[in-house]
Amino acid sequence: MDTTSAPHRVVIVGSGFGGLFAAKALRRAPVEVTLIARTGHHLFQPLLYQVATGILSEGEIAPATRQILRRQKNTEVLLGDVTTIDLAARTVTSTSPIGETVTPYDSLIVAAGASQSYFGNDRFADYAPGMKSIDDALELRGRIFGAFEMAELAEDPDEVDRWLTFVVVGAGPTGVEMAGQISELARRALPGDFRRIDPATARVILLDAAPQLLGGFGGSLSDKAGEQLKRIKVDVQLRAKVVDVDATGIEVEDADGTRRRIGSMCKIWAAGVAASPLARQLGEKSGAEVDRAGRVRVQADCSLPGHPEVFVVGDMAAQDLPGVAQVAIQGARHAAGQIKRRLASKPTGQPFAYHDKGSMATVSRFHAVASVGPLRLAGFLAWLMWLAVHLVYIVGFKNRLTTVLHWAVSFVGRGRSERTATLQQIFARQALRQVAGSSPPRT
Amino acid sequence: MDTTSAPHRVVIVGSGFGGLFAAKALRRAPVEVTLIARTGHHLFQPLLYQVATGILSEGEIAPATRQILRRQKNTEVLLGDVTTIDLAARTVTSTSPIGETVTPYDSLIVAAGASQSYFGNDRFADYAPGMKSIDDALELRGRIFGAFEMAELAEDPDEVDRWLTFVVVGAGPTGVEMAGQISELARRALPGDFRRIDPATARVILLDAAPQLLGGFGGSLSDKAGEQLKRIKVDVQLRAKVVDVDATGIEVEDADGTRRRIGSMCKIWAAGVAASPLARQLGEKSGAEVDRAGRVRVQADCSLPGHPEVFVVGDMAAQDLPGVAQVAIQGARHAAGQIKRRLASKPTGQPFAYHDKGSMATVSRFHAVASVGPLRLAGFLAWLMWLAVHLVYIVGFKNRLTTVLHWAVSFVGRGRSERTATLQQIFARQALRQVAGSSPPRT
Repeated sequence: MDTTSAPHRVVIVGSGFGGLFAAKALRRAPVEVTLIARTGHHLFQPLLYQVATGILSEGEIAPATRQILRRQKNTEVLLGDVTTIDLAARTVTSTSPIGETVTPYDSLIVAAGASQSYFGNDRFADYAPGMKSIDDALELRGRIFGAFEMAELAEDPDEVDRWLTFVVVGAGPTGVEMAGQISELARRALPGDFRRIDPATARVILLDAAPQLLGGFGGSLSDKAGEQLKRIKVDVQLRAKVVDVDATGIEVEDADGTRRRIGSMCKIWAAGVAASPLARQLGEKSGAEVDRAGRVRVQADCSLPGHPEVFVVGDMAAQDLPGVAQVAIQGARHAAGQIKRRLASKPTGQPFAYHDKGSMATVSRFHAVASVGPLRLAGFLAWLMWLAVHLVYIVGFKNRLTTVLHWAVSFVGRGRSERTATLQQIFARQALRQVAGSSPPRT
Repeated sequence: MDTTSAPHRVVIVGSGFGGLFAAKALRRAPVEVTLIARTGHHLFQPLLYQVATGILSEGEIAPATRQILRRQKNTEVLLGDVTTIDLAARTVTSTSPIGETVTPYDSLIVAAGASQSYFGNDRFADYAPGMKSIDDALELRGRIFGAFEMAELAEDPDEVDRWLTFVVVGAGPTGVEMAGQISELARRALPGDFRRIDPATARVILLDAAPQLLGGFGGSLSDKAGEQLKRIKVDVQLRAKVVDVDATGIEVEDADGTRRRIGSMCKIWAAGVAASPLARQLGEKSGAEVDRAGRVRVQADCSLPGHPEVFVVGDMAAQDLPGVAQVAIQGARHAAGQIKRRLASKPTGQPFAYHDKGSMATVSRFHAVASVGPLRLAGFLAWLMWLAVHLVYIVGFKNRLTTVLHWAVSFVGRGRSERTATLQQIFARQALRQVAGSSPPRT
């Protein structure tokens, strides 16, 4: 505990659901909060697939963190990629284009999230971008819309097929939503835009090594989601393990051990996550266990063993909880609550009790699946629930208004308002990565 | 003239105002139109500065060309960077990530526009991006918002000053609008977002070698615009010639020959334009004169000398007309009209008569200057005219709706909804270009 008269300094690492809600929970606390994150925005990750498919603009799902927190006068926001946490000196070191910044803390909440995992095959990343950042979403937007452009230009029928075959790896909520949305894009939004190809003939393949899709939702909803995906012509291939990915396709091993190749220029990786390397660093420095996904095992109260002043929440924490927004939000609120109790000289160490509010995934427009308590819903009602919940969590009244407009454009209408690609995407990165297959540095 | 029974093939190069309006003018003509452009979108260039300053999303000013033209069944859109025009064989060769495409034509309308000119100092481009493409606008958006982020982090007061000094080179409409908007961003939108710096202390300098700003508007409007810029704290420096630009500042030579340096991390180039290299190529192949700005001298009817089947319109054509949207639009309509007359066996060769509809520039919210016929307007009324005219030319009902919303957010409110930067911008490109001063390849 800080015993001087200086205010208690709380440093928060990360501006995702964990970091943002930790900061908000400390709004009225007698503390000075510094939130450090490597992006200037709070990313609403569950809607990333809608940026990748041209429905929403990046600003709608990634408002500036400092704008969200502007009225919270005890809080400052700093841009920086946190590289080192010194548990003994109680400092956080971050880098930015201007150099290193060292920020001292009295309490620390680490919520740096997770990045995509390629299960040891990082070279896949160039050919199959993940679904974790605005960079990813814009890269995929360029590739998805670009694939139809290239198909329109190509003359060899096999090449046209490869450009019109989209493979999504990973049949969790992100993969299901992405595959469904690409299929609707191809079959509802784009026909009429092209003269030489028929976008509606595009193949959208959703692959997973598991025996069922949406594993976390339970059998009946998996089946219902599978039926709806079939209805919108997504080709779901389960028990199919990806063994290789390259510029022009993907190699798959089926359950019976046979290998086959799918020719595809546009691949999307929604398969696995790896916790921020800060989790391993904290594990090594504190002696806490680090699991296979790189998450650090925390105490029941979300604190690091031996460091009651350090909390780890969300995707970085090994807690036998799913990697969803609610776990990060509730964990962050719990950590903030512990800090406030400590400052009020109340007993601390209360275990974090996760309240499962349910899970949902949109399969297509007007059709979602939702699992809430004992309820299992599939169809329009679940979609309305999805709509309501997402609108509540989208930050800011103005973003809600434009989002509703963009949804009307895309779900009631057929349009995609946000499909701009840069010249760099068309001519430099796409050419380099997809055709020649070389690998410019990823950031 | 094509004398076979095959339909007359019109190829249009470019998807800017010239290309798009040429295609639209041929909607009911007995021709097959192929529009080839190196971006998939029609860029509404006059609002580029609003993307760079976080007001509008890129989708709002750059809708997909093929979506705009989807109902025009005689027209196809192909992605490609046109490299060669063969006047003898009547073919256009374009490149794309899938290779070269050769497209034959019976009539050709070339409207490939202009890019930024650094007057022979191309190395300035890395330090002072231009205002010509979506790539430029997104790069500048990252730099402008990033400069405030870096200022918040910097500890050396001189460094803070450099991050908070913005220099716009070129006091034409683009430069005036950009400088005004950065000043409003710093003084209206951002205060409250930061804790260590006061964004309202930012300096915004508008430089021009000319003795007055908005040269094309006439003296009284130049003065009025200058007064309004002063009111919103833009530091207008005229008769100031840029002699060097580097990572941390800009060297200026004043009218009396003295040189001085302005420390600034964020520089914007809105000074000169150079016609697409296709203009020079057409000049060399046809013997037509090419002027200092790289534009090719066309006949009175906008055709290339000796080639009545080839028209050059907009920023590529040397016609003693200003480089504004209306010149491209009206030139394109004239060229399309000539093609239609020829196909109807009517006499051709009518000279293009430009009808000047006036010019306008926004200085700040609620304040614009407009020159329409004998009218000279400055203030709120001119701003309402600006608003109306731009809403009319923004393509698509949906884009108009979201644009009005975004304008309300920014002009009535204080917000900037679209300020997202990518990780690549923050950590790779910005670091490389601005701090180390090295030059990654530009596309």
